[in-house]
Amino acid sequence: MPNISKKGQQMPESPIRKLVPFAEAAKARGTKVYFLNIGQPDISMPKQALQAVRDFDQALVPYSHSAGHMSYRKKLIKYYQNNDIHINPDDIIITTGASEALLIGMQAIMDPDDEIIIPEPFYANYLGFAVNSGVKVVPIASNIENGFALPPIEDFEKAIKPKTKAIVICNPNNPSGYLYSKEELEVLKHIALKYNLFLFADEVYREFIYDGKKHHSIMQLEGLDEHVVLIDSVSKRYSACGIRIGALISKNKEFIFTCLKFAQARLSPPSYGQIAAEAALETPQTYFDEVIHEYEERRDCVVRRINAMEGAFCPNPSGAFYVVARLPIDHSDKFCRWLLEEFEYQHETVMLAPASGFYETKGRGLDEVRISYVLKISDLEKAMDLLDQALKVYPGRTIQ
Amino acid sequence: MPNISKKGQQMPESPIRKLVPFAEAAKARGTKVYFLNIGQPDISMPKQALQAVRDFDQALVPYSHSAGHMSYRKKLIKYYQNNDIHINPDDIIITTGASEALLIGMQAIMDPDDEIIIPEPFYANYLGFAVNSGVKVVPIASNIENGFALPPIEDFEKAIKPKTKAIVICNPNNPSGYLYSKEELEVLKHIALKYNLFLFADEVYREFIYDGKKHHSIMQLEGLDEHVVLIDSVSKRYSACGIRIGALISKNKEFIFTCLKFAQARLSPPSYGQIAAEAALETPQTYFDEVIHEYEERRDCVVRRINAMEGAFCPNPSGAFYVVARLPIDHSDKFCRWLLEEFEYQHETVMLAPASGFYETKGRGLDEVRISYVLKISDLEKAMDLLDQALKVYPGRTIQ
Repeated sequence: MPNISKKGQQMPESPIRKLVPFAEAAKARGTKVYFLNIGQPDISMPKQALQAVRDFDQALVPYSHSAGHMSYRKKLIKYYQNNDIHINPDDIIITTGASEALLIGMQAIMDPDDEIIIPEPFYANYLGFAVNSGVKVVPIASNIENGFALPPIEDFEKAIKPKTKAIVICNPNNPSGYLYSKEELEVLKHIALKYNLFLFADEVYREFIYDGKKHHSIMQLEGLDEHVVLIDSVSKRYSACGIRIGALISKNKEFIFTCLKFAQARLSPPSYGQIAAEAALETPQTYFDEVIHEYEERRDCVVRRINAMEGAFCPNPSGAFYVVARLPIDHSDKFCRWLLEEFEYQHETVMLAPASGFYETKGRGLDEVRISYVLKISDLEKAMDLLDQALKVYPGRTIQ
Repeated sequence: MPNISKKGQQMPESPIRKLVPFAEAAKARGTKVYFLNIGQPDISMPKQALQAVRDFDQALVPYSHSAGHMSYRKKLIKYYQNNDIHINPDDIIITTGASEALLIGMQAIMDPDDEIIIPEPFYANYLGFAVNSGVKVVPIASNIENGFALPPIEDFEKAIKPKTKAIVICNPNNPSGYLYSKEELEVLKHIALKYNLFLFADEVYREFIYDGKKHHSIMQLEGLDEHVVLIDSVSKRYSACGIRIGALISKNKEFIFTCLKFAQARLSPPSYGQIAAEAALETPQTYFDEVIHEYEERRDCVVRRINAMEGAFCPNPSGAFYVVARLPIDHSDKFCRWLLEEFEYQHETVMLAPASGFYETKGRGLDEVRISYVLKISDLEKAMDLLDQALKVYPGRTIQ
């Protein structure tokens, strides 16, 4: 048979999905699995968004503009204004999820063997998009001890080489939940200007900020318009993961012109999703108030419960709906698989994401897991009970 | 500012979309434009497909499986069986249009500087996907004189080099409408086996076959399972371009495994589109009978009218809803732009696609245009009147 590509061989398998067959086997055995492994919120979508799709009354669904419906882009301007981000409809390309925004954005600025710097742990699929683009990810370490704050400026400077084209951050962060401060963004601005780099920020969790804190967007950095690329998505914002609507935003005209050529080749983003996303912009603030209150309680529950477990540590992050926790375990891949294959307590178990999959540096994250708090409190409490039980009997437990 | 990529610079602008601003200017002047430039059918979507989306009654739209909803893939098996194509659900990855199927399929088999052979003229975006993948397109010439039949086997053999990884065809063809015969597919099989190449066929126009002829799929070629990749889409089949649902199909397990890794990185195809596409499988044959009858009449109209124009020639293709016609013009880019910028007859004009955009070989297609017969007969007749008028007064007319 003909050979597949080197790129295809290098393409990583999703670290989370690798465990899915074991979860399915557990369910088949009659074990109830609490899924804390994936960023699929359980919150309802805004009613307006669902209704707008039901109300679609045309005879056919045509291609949209390659950059997305103009009516949607115009309304987005107002949404961003309310978030103190000031852009024009022509600065926006609507994409098929944040995934496509990242893919197109990377293709537009990077050729094979170019490098991007990403603080690790980072969203595992960034690596997939980099392999897809033939690009090398250079990780720099953030650490659980300080809650995964931005690494010091020297670490960035040590990693920057002539082939370095961009820095990518996720703010607030998946997987750590860390919310970057204004000062940290200023550090990134300094580096981007000094070394003439693009600065990508994935801000898909912008709304999910706790403890009364404020989200700062890279689009708010002054004098950085040519460098800044905002990656966005409605998946998490409106519990609308399956509608596949994201956005690629920049005030750099040449960058957007280039991205639009890639967008034209794939014709258009999904029309139904755009209809839902446009209507979702009418979502009242009360929806977010309730959602944020709910997530804040969930985070409090997870952080409190994990820190009460012997030998475990969980920072208290201010955003998104994830935590990365350190557990007294030998290997998070083994532990997460063991939870599904061998552990059960009263016919129940829990599925977590091994944090190793969020690190590019081999050997990091082996005693860490990512927990998505996307279940209601009563289920989260049960899942934490299970984790507590499991840690007591796990054969690879590292404390006695 | 930081530099964009070489790839981004090489990325072609869509040859059709380049003309859009001139069409918009014409409309702004009050000129009615008949759009024969784009493959956006005017036929209604099957009612079941539209209704299924209206009936969606869940509280949120979750990610689907990265390979698409299993219920949809299972039903697709039956659809393909009815087309004498025998596959399993695991042979299918549902994609965001045929565009994504091609992108993922190319990435899975080709590394930068690998080559693919495509008979030209070919669908312009194939070039975009190749640039996206860092891959070189090697065109071989098909010709208007024989209706754009498959080029002779020697032409393929001359083009094959160690870096050649695949041959790509579109059957029936966009832009030419040509329907490949069983014998032509056997020639491709012979070449694929002899040189150990992948054989991609884009069969998105499978249903649109005229004159009582039969479509032959590459999936029907025996002994070629490891080589064959089928690219599909529901966009044209059900006039559902905007739902963005395609498919990548192969019996080569390693190929599908590799593609699935790329599919996982982008999470999932659009859920609403999958719901519509699944319901569309219930579309009765009468829908297609009517649509095919309508397109056949339209094709007859266009072919008859063009061949009646002095110095013009149009083959009579058996599939899709396009023709490539030769016109007595100096340069199709100039002519198509002139139609929008300078020509009008009773405040009307017509928009065509310059065929130059469908050729990779510089200088080919300059006296050819692609015409999409996606308007009703009365409008097509008017558009042909306009083309006839225009050719008589076009300053770059090549016959006197």
